[in-house]
Amino acid sequence: MERTLLKKLKWLPESIEEQNIIYDSPKKGRDELEYVILKSVNLIRQNEMVHFYKLEPDRHIPKHGHDFIEVFYTCKGIVQHIIQGNIVNVKKGELLFMSQNTVHEINPVSEEDVGVYFAFVPEFFHQINAMMEIDNTVAEFIFNSLLGSDKKTSYFHFQTATNKRIHNLIENMIEIILSGKQSSMKLLQNTMLLIFLEMIESFEESYKNEMKQINGGNVMEVINYINQNYKNASLSELSKEMHISVAYLSQMIKKTQG
Amino acid sequence: MERTLLKKLKWLPESIEEQNIIYDSPKKGRDELEYVILKSVNLIRQNEMVHFYKLEPDRHIPKHGHDFIEVFYTCKGIVQHIIQGNIVNVKKGELLFMSQNTVHEINPVSEEDVGVYFAFVPEFFHQINAMMEIDNTVAEFIFNSLLGSDKKTSYFHFQTATNKRIHNLIENMIEIILSGKQSSMKLLQNTMLLIFLEMIESFEESYKNEMKQINGGNVMEVINYINQNYKNASLSELSKEMHISVAYLSQMIKKTQG
Repeated sequence: MERTLLKKLKWLPESIEEQNIIYDSPKKGRDELEYVILKSVNLIRQNEMVHFYKLEPDRHIPKHGHDFIEVFYTCKGIVQHIIQGNIVNVKKGELLFMSQNTVHEINPVSEEDVGVYFAFVPEFFHQINAMMEIDNTVAEFIFNSLLGSDKKTSYFHFQTATNKRIHNLIENMIEIILSGKQSSMKLLQNTMLLIFLEMIESFEESYKNEMKQINGGNVMEVINYINQNYKNASLSELSKEMHISVAYLSQMIKKTQG
Repeated sequence: MERTLLKKLKWLPESIEEQNIIYDSPKKGRDELEYVILKSVNLIRQNEMVHFYKLEPDRHIPKHGHDFIEVFYTCKGIVQHIIQGNIVNVKKGELLFMSQNTVHEINPVSEEDVGVYFAFVPEFFHQINAMMEIDNTVAEFIFNSLLGSDKKTSYFHFQTATNKRIHNLIENMIEIILSGKQSSMKLLQNTMLLIFLEMIESFEESYKNEMKQINGGNVMEVINYINQNYKNASLSELSKEMHISVAYLSQMIKKTQG
């Protein structure tokens, strides 16, 4: 990330009242199953669609849920999330999308690690979905999962560390939000649309690369695995477990779904 | 511009056969009115919409026209264009859009100056125009001028040196083209769409800033000036001459056009 933007982030206020609810939550209930659900109505201002937030160093963020879609990005260093027992290390330049009902916690980060998150009202992604105008399985699967009302956990960990174009777009998204202009919603949505188009393109590439390594046996394994588990797991987790690409996986999902 | 991208540009081949036609053109005719018209059919590959080109140092590019839309960007240093007798200095981070029938020449640049241009078939901008989906005078004026079949010269020199978001988007556009993938047209168009949205937003800002400085007398002056001259001049030239913002100017244009 560009140094001037990192500096800007350094001086950004870190928490608002609603966020303190998370920090204080363990005092209220230490039960494993008990956790706070953050509400967009408290975090995101009226008539706005997004709230932007920077991780505070040296603080553990206890298990919590949210009624919004969270997009997490690591600007510098590494940030460790725990999502339903899965450790997800989001490294510099990587993205983590979490659906409305994903419950997660975040381990403390050092002064050297910079993580930011965007809290979007679901309507924002409904609109991006409508703007896509392409018939693409990966996109369809991601949108359905993120927006799904099935109360299932869905998260997508995108290994975008080497995609400079996505970093530029995230920088732009942060700058647009920091500018604090209402008029910028169109800019913000078109930027997120481009991030999605970039992610889809990189899926398709890795799909082409890895197709050669796939044999018939693997395909059945994937289909079985997906049938049993995919609703609770992330695409990247699955693809890692199966040693195949995310795009290939999504093709399988399409086939099994009929 | 990011150092790695500048390095990539350094090793990019500089000229193709069609471009040599410009360099050789003074030999063919030294008449002031005589100049070569570059044809997109020779520069832009079939089924593609854009050709990307880097300025060669220490070479004067004689007066020439093109049947495509040229977008020029200075990555480093400064590049001097001469458009119908007007000297246009495009500084680092600034953009110059030229309509299909704009005739211009470029003075030699040093090794330290890096300028790139994109040659777009008009169809590309027709599509961007359709994607805009907003009713905006500035956008309308720019598209009409760039795509106009009136054979008039129209160029727009955007003072975008301080807009980091536009720089990021131009970097992305270069990276997308250098990746050489056919599939990337959608990425390219959405990136250009965002560049337009950014430019419109910055117009509107300067419009708001400068409205306070405008009085009734100025307005008539602008209207008269535009009525007499605007078809041959750039918006930025006009706004400079009138000491008002480009957006305000475009409002005047709308009023005079009825």
